[in-house]
Amino acid sequence: MLEQKRTEISTLGEFGLIEHLTKGLEKVNDSTKYTVGDDAAVLDYKNKRVLVTTDLLMEGVHFDLVYTPLKHLGYKSAMVNFSDIYAMNGTPKQITVSLGISKRFCIEDMEALYAGIRLACEEHNVDIIGGDTTSSLTGLTISITCIGEADEDEIVYRNGAKETDLICVSGDLGAAYMGLQLLEREKMALQGKDDIQPDFAGKEYLLERQLKPEARRDIIKKLKEAGIKPTAMMDISDGLSSELMHICKQSNTGCRIYEEHIPIDYQTAVQAEEFNMNLTTCALNGGEDYELLFTVPIADHEKISEMEGVKMIGHITKPELGLAIITRDGNEMELKAQGWNPLK
Amino acid sequence: MLEQKRTEISTLGEFGLIEHLTKGLEKVNDSTKYTVGDDAAVLDYKNKRVLVTTDLLMEGVHFDLVYTPLKHLGYKSAMVNFSDIYAMNGTPKQITVSLGISKRFCIEDMEALYAGIRLACEEHNVDIIGGDTTSSLTGLTISITCIGEADEDEIVYRNGAKETDLICVSGDLGAAYMGLQLLEREKMALQGKDDIQPDFAGKEYLLERQLKPEARRDIIKKLKEAGIKPTAMMDISDGLSSELMHICKQSNTGCRIYEEHIPIDYQTAVQAEEFNMNLTTCALNGGEDYELLFTVPIADHEKISEMEGVKMIGHITKPELGLAIITRDGNEMELKAQGWNPLK
Repeated sequence: MLEQKRTEISTLGEFGLIEHLTKGLEKVNDSTKYTVGDDAAVLDYKNKRVLVTTDLLMEGVHFDLVYTPLKHLGYKSAMVNFSDIYAMNGTPKQITVSLGISKRFCIEDMEALYAGIRLACEEHNVDIIGGDTTSSLTGLTISITCIGEADEDEIVYRNGAKETDLICVSGDLGAAYMGLQLLEREKMALQGKDDIQPDFAGKEYLLERQLKPEARRDIIKKLKEAGIKPTAMMDISDGLSSELMHICKQSNTGCRIYEEHIPIDYQTAVQAEEFNMNLTTCALNGGEDYELLFTVPIADHEKISEMEGVKMIGHITKPELGLAIITRDGNEMELKAQGWNPLK
Repeated sequence: MLEQKRTEISTLGEFGLIEHLTKGLEKVNDSTKYTVGDDAAVLDYKNKRVLVTTDLLMEGVHFDLVYTPLKHLGYKSAMVNFSDIYAMNGTPKQITVSLGISKRFCIEDMEALYAGIRLACEEHNVDIIGGDTTSSLTGLTISITCIGEADEDEIVYRNGAKETDLICVSGDLGAAYMGLQLLEREKMALQGKDDIQPDFAGKEYLLERQLKPEARRDIIKKLKEAGIKPTAMMDISDGLSSELMHICKQSNTGCRIYEEHIPIDYQTAVQAEEFNMNLTTCALNGGEDYELLFTVPIADHEKISEMEGVKMIGHITKPELGLAIITRDGNEMELKAQGWNPLK
C-alpha cells in the first residue's frame, strides 16, 4: 500500500486551511452575494422565503471513521441538510461548514472531507458561504447550516395533514440501517486483522444507502410537475414511525398504515433474514433513509399511483383512532417510535 | 452548600429537551415566520440582505467550565455571533443553537446554558429558530449560526479601507485576555482546595470582559446617528493586530497605528504589571475583546473625535508601507499578528 501524504494542519493554521479548502469555489446562486472572508456572508433573497436548517455531527455518535471514508462523510453531512430543505418543498442554496478537528487529522483528511462536501454542493447547486474551523480535544465535529429558498405558498410544513389524506413515502426503507449493521458486524469480525478485506458482494446497495445517501430533489420535482402540493412533508431521518408521529402530532390526526405497502428493497430483506431481524421493525425504526414522507389529498390518488419511486402506505385518520399499522395477517397494532434517539 | 437538583437528560430525550428549553419563546422579529419544530425554520427577509455567520465552540478549547458558569457561556456564545453581524453594520435577527452534550451534563445544566442564550437574545431582540441537540462522547460542543439583516447599501465589508482613512476602535482592549489569565491563575492556585473562594476584588471589570462580553450595537447606532458609514469594519475576536492585518490585506493597504492611542482600561494595566506582562502586547494580541475595529474617511475626523467610546488609533497607508506601530518612544515597528490561532 502506498504511504499517504500527511501534512500537519498547524502548517497552514485556521485561515490558511480555510483558504486552502475553499480555493476555486465559484458562486452558483444569484442569492449568494458575498461568501467566505468577512464577519458574515451576505445573501439576497428578494421576495422569497428563507429556509434554515442545521445539523451537528459528532464522531463516535453519528459516524465511525473505521468504516466511513472522509469523502463519504463530507458528502453525507451536506446531503442530510439538503434533505431537510427539500422536505420543506424548498431548494437548498447555501451552507456554512464548521469543523472541530483533533490532532489526529491532517490536511489531506480535511481535503477528503471537503471534497465530499463540495461534490454534494455541486450536484445540488449549493454555495459554501462560510463557517468556522477550530481544534477539538478529541475526534471530529461537523456542524453544517443550510439555507434554502421557497415561495411562500409552496412551503410544506409538518402540520397540514388532514383526515383521509394519503400517506406516501419515496424510495424504500430500512436499507441504510441494514448497511450500518453490516458495517458494524464486519468491524467486529475484522478487528486486528489488517490484511483482510470484507466481502460485501451483493450488498452494495445497503452500503451505499448508509454511506452515500441522496436527498430526494427528484421527488420534489416530480410532485411539482404533477401539480401536487403535499399537505404535510418531512424527511425520514429517525425512522418512519418516529416521523409519522411528528406529522400526526403536529397535524392533530391519527394514521393507519399497511405493513404490506411499506417499500423495502430485496437486499434489505435478504440481510434482515441473514441477521434474523424483523424486517418491518427495521423499515419502521431503522432511520437514516433520507426518503420523503408526505401526505396528499385523496384526490391526488391517481397521479400518485402513476408516479415512479413513490408508494402509498396508508392514510390519515381522526386523532381518536391513534397511530396504527395493519400487519400482513390483518391485525391492527399501535405504531410505536423506537427510532434513534441521540440522547437516550 | 445546597445540593443542586440533577435530572438526567435521558428522561426527556432529544425532542423533549428542545421543547423544554424553548418553552415560552415568543417571536420578536417580523422576519421570523416559523421556528423550532419542522425540518427547517422559515424567514422572510423581503428586500433586505441576509447576513449569515457561525461559530463552533468546543469545551477545553474555547471554554473551561471550571471557571465559566454555564449561563455566562450561553450568553457569550450568542453574543459573539451578534458581534459578527454588527461588524457588517447589520442587525442580528435569528439564531440556531446546536448542542453536543456528554453524559456529564444534566437538564439543569442545559437550562442554565439556555438561560444565558435567551438573555442575550432578549437584549438584542433575536429569535431562536432551531438547532440540533445530540450527545457527544466527551465534553460540551456549542454551534451557533446567526442570521441578520442589512440594507444593501449599509453593509460594511473588510475590504473598503482607503489610504488616509482613520483607524478607530471602540471600548478598550486587552481586558478579556487579562481576565482569562486571572481565571487561569486562580484555577491553578486553587486546585484541590474546594473551600476557598478566590478574591477578585478590584478586578471585576477584567472578569466581566472575559465572561460576559457585550456586542457593540450601541456603537453601530451612534455611527448611524452621526451619519458615518465606515469604509471597513470587523469585530476584534483574535486581537487587534490580527484583525488589522485582515482589513489591510483585504483592502490592499498598509496602516500605521500609535501605541499611545490604543485604549486600555486601568484594571488591565494594573493586572499586566502584576503579571509582569507587556501591556501593549496584551492589547494587540489578547483577543476576545469583541470591540469594533473600523476605518472612516478623514473627513469624519471631527465627528469621531466627539464620539464617546471610540478612539482613533492611527490611519490607513499605501500598501508598500506595510503594517506599522509607532511606539511611545517614537520608534516604528512592524505589526505582527500573534493572536489566538485555534489550529496551532
